[in-house]
Amino acid sequence: MSLTIYRKAHFNAAHRLYREDWTDEKNLEIFGKCSNPHYHGHNYELEVGVSGEIDPETGYLIDIKELKDLILEEVEEPFDHKNLNIEVADFKNLNPTVENIAMVIWNRLRKRLDTRYDLSVKLFETPRNFVLYTG
Amino acid sequence: MSLTIYRKAHFNAAHRLYREDWTDEKNLEIFGKCSNPHYHGHNYELEVGVSGEIDPETGYLIDIKELKDLILEEVEEPFDHKNLNIEVADFKNLNPTVENIAMVIWNRLRKRLDTRYDLSVKLFETPRNFVLYTG
Amino acid sequence: MSLTIYRKAHFNAAHRLYREDWTDEKNLEIFGKCSNPHYHGHNYELEVGVSGEIDPETGYLIDIKELKDLILEEVEEPFDHKNLNIEVADFKNLNPTVENIAMVIWNRLRKRLDTRYDLSVKLFETPRNFVLYTG
Amino acid sequence: MSLTIYRKAHFNAAHRLYREDWTDEKNLEIFGKCSNPHYHGHNYELEVGVSGEIDPETGYLIDIKELKDLILEEVEEPFDHKNLNIEVADFKNLNPTVENIAMVIWNRLRKRLDTRYDLSVKLFETPRNFVLYTG
Amino acid sequence: MSLTIYRKAHFNAAHRLYREDWTDEKNLEIFGKCSNPHYHGHNYELEVGVSGEIDPETGYLIDIKELKDLILEEVEEPFDHKNLNIEVADFKNLNPTVENIAMVIWNRLRKRLDTRYDLSVKLFETPRNFVLYTG
Amino acid sequence: MSLTIYRKAHFNAAHRLYREDWTDEKNLEIFGKCSNPHYHGHNYELEVGVSGEIDPETGYLIDIKELKDLILEEVEEPFDHKNLNIEVADFKNLNPTVENIAMVIWNRLRKRLDTRYDLSVKLFETPRNFVLYTG
Repeated sequence: MSLTIYRKAHFNAAHRLYREDWTDEKNLEIFGKCSNPHYHGHNYELEVGVSGEIDPETGYLIDIKELKDLILEEVEEPFDHKNLNIEVADFKNLNPTVENIAMVIWNRLRKRLDTRYDLSVKLFETPRNFVLYTG
Repeated sequence: MSLTIYRKAHFNAAHRLYREDWTDEKNLEIFGKCSNPHYHGHNYELEVGVSGEIDPETGYLIDIKELKDLILEEVEEPFDHKNLNIEVADFKNLNPTVENIAMVIWNRLRKRLDTRYDLSVKLFETPRNFVLYTG
Repeated sequence: MSLTIYRKAHFNAAHRLYREDWTDEKNLEIFGKCSNPHYHGHNYELEVGVSGEIDPETGYLIDIKELKDLILEEVEEPFDHKNLNIEVADFKNLNPTVENIAMVIWNRLRKRLDTRYDLSVKLFETPRNFVLYTG
Repeated sequence: MSLTIYRKAHFNAAHRLYREDWTDEKNLEIFGKCSNPHYHGHNYELEVGVSGEIDPETGYLIDIKELKDLILEEVEEPFDHKNLNIEVADFKNLNPTVENIAMVIWNRLRKRLDTRYDLSVKLFETPRNFVLYTG
Repeated sequence: MSLTIYRKAHFNAAHRLYREDWTDEKNLEIFGKCSNPHYHGHNYELEVGVSGEIDPETGYLIDIKELKDLILEEVEEPFDHKNLNIEVADFKNLNPTVENIAMVIWNRLRKRLDTRYDLSVKLFETPRNFVLYTG
Repeated sequence: MSLTIYRKAHFNAAHRLYREDWTDEKNLEIFGKCSNPHYHGHNYELEVGVSGEIDPETGYLIDIKELKDLILEEVEEPFDHKNLNIEVADFKNLNPTVENIAMVIWNRLRKRLDTRYDLSVKLFETPRNFVLYTG
């Protein structure tokens, strides 16, 4: 049996793609306009998937309010209306590509989620670019 | 080779979450406003996925009209504009959580679908909450 | 100059269409399956538009947080997860068609909104059926 | 006769809401987390509407490729992947609220568009907050 | 009082943009790849708006099932899965631009709709290009 | 570790479903109105997924610009505004069902994509019918 429940959330943030140990020219060459030193930003749309067994007593896989609160604490509060490079410690030494942001979110949720659940994170940077990370 | 064809459908229904063997207080504590005794409702959006081999003669995995008719008979006609708790026998002794509704739909379609196909059901209760069940 | 700012919101509710002074047969004839005595329900999606002058000091037409809170108080709290026919006094003697729900919402917001603003309400009953009411 | 043709476009940008002549405390009080000095950002979705008469020879109101190129030159190239406060001269002395951004876009397009057309600009800052400006 | 109810519908069709009295070169110059002599096609999404007074007896502006059936007869049946240039008489001498298709749809619906209603037609040729025609 | 990055794209095309070796009656019986000899068409929406390891130096799984250009060359340029049956050699002897189009796209991209990546193709023929092919 395979059952997954999904919850959507979102946050807005500024970021830039770059490596401190590269010159501005190298950053521009590799990351293009995404390396703009003055930053740009996105409306990030998030879909968190939790897989597991249904609880026969309640008919819930997980209480969706718990999942909503967990996403609020671990993602929306620390990331929303923030500059990811400057204000979110996870990205102090990690380039905030959509791939890395998805993995950071997965790790944050994973350590708070009961081990009986599997976890997936889909993150949209724009409506046309998105990633799926399943650990 | 892995090929899946999907068909979307929808139905509107009233429901409430509760267990008859629990007090109203207990139902409210566990299910919150979803246990409202006067019911609330949703526009359920459904995505049915059928996996299998392509028929080299037609280029079809399955005739999508057959799939559409099957969903109409097994889901839309029995569920649309209904009170799930009162009017749909599948939920007489089963709490109509989105998880349970998805599993009921999967079971209804599974027994009508040729065994050479695999089946998945994604069901949106709201644009932000949805489940995927693959049997 | 014509400037309007919009805020989206949503609520889930059960309802039925019927007139108490009509027989069940007449209700069924006019309102079809929407008159189901056991109720059905929808995810109502709401777009509230507020028109007016921009405040040159802030660059705001209206503080969107104020508008969000107003919608929360006047629409989401009284309507969400409710049975509109039974639990919302506005519909005690008013058939909760999508037209009437939109007008009730407009009236509720209008009396709380400063007279220097114009108001519009778009209400989706399903993704395919919706109304616009501008007073 | 009233005919309007619409073209969608988008751009990503960083911004903050604030007035230089206010203290940080006043900015925070009025603009909340939108005044974050390190910036945040959005995927701005734009709908440009051009109204006028149909050309009976071509059946076009306007050549949509011309409109697409105009939006590219006047909006996407100057705004995309930029910090609106720092890098877009229009906002040097103008708070980049969604209201003001829409009016700036309207003015940029208006002066390039033949006077036989009317113009409207709808700008989404998030899927839930958007404005319509018609001049 | 201003109240409008909207109904969405869709149809798929092939078309090309061209004038018989122009050379292929002129057609290509003006209509670009849309003039491909072998045709291309679209999923046309349609929003029909009907404005008028609410019927105090039913709470309906118009019975949405009537509107749905009217759109089926006047638009979906004659246009769906058709080649607009060859198979739809309205375009025998009229270039099937999105502007002209919207006006044809408006005229077809207008002559069937009671004069107490106003009518608007929004037609999406792609998610990025669409028109609004209000007569 | 499982990480996938997705890029959306679209193309418009005309097609018909039929087999040359069948009579018109047989084609109509099996393919219904999709076998219309004058063609119909769609806005095809495409989601290409590329799975693999993250590059620790850049934080990229793949440079999304490379993926975008690959889709442009292999799908958008050869398919957009085309008649698939007549103008795209891949369908000279292959019925352009949505299943077959997805497999053709997968094969075109697969032979251009480094073998260290896995590939998936989701193709929407309409918002309600779509397929997923993973090779």
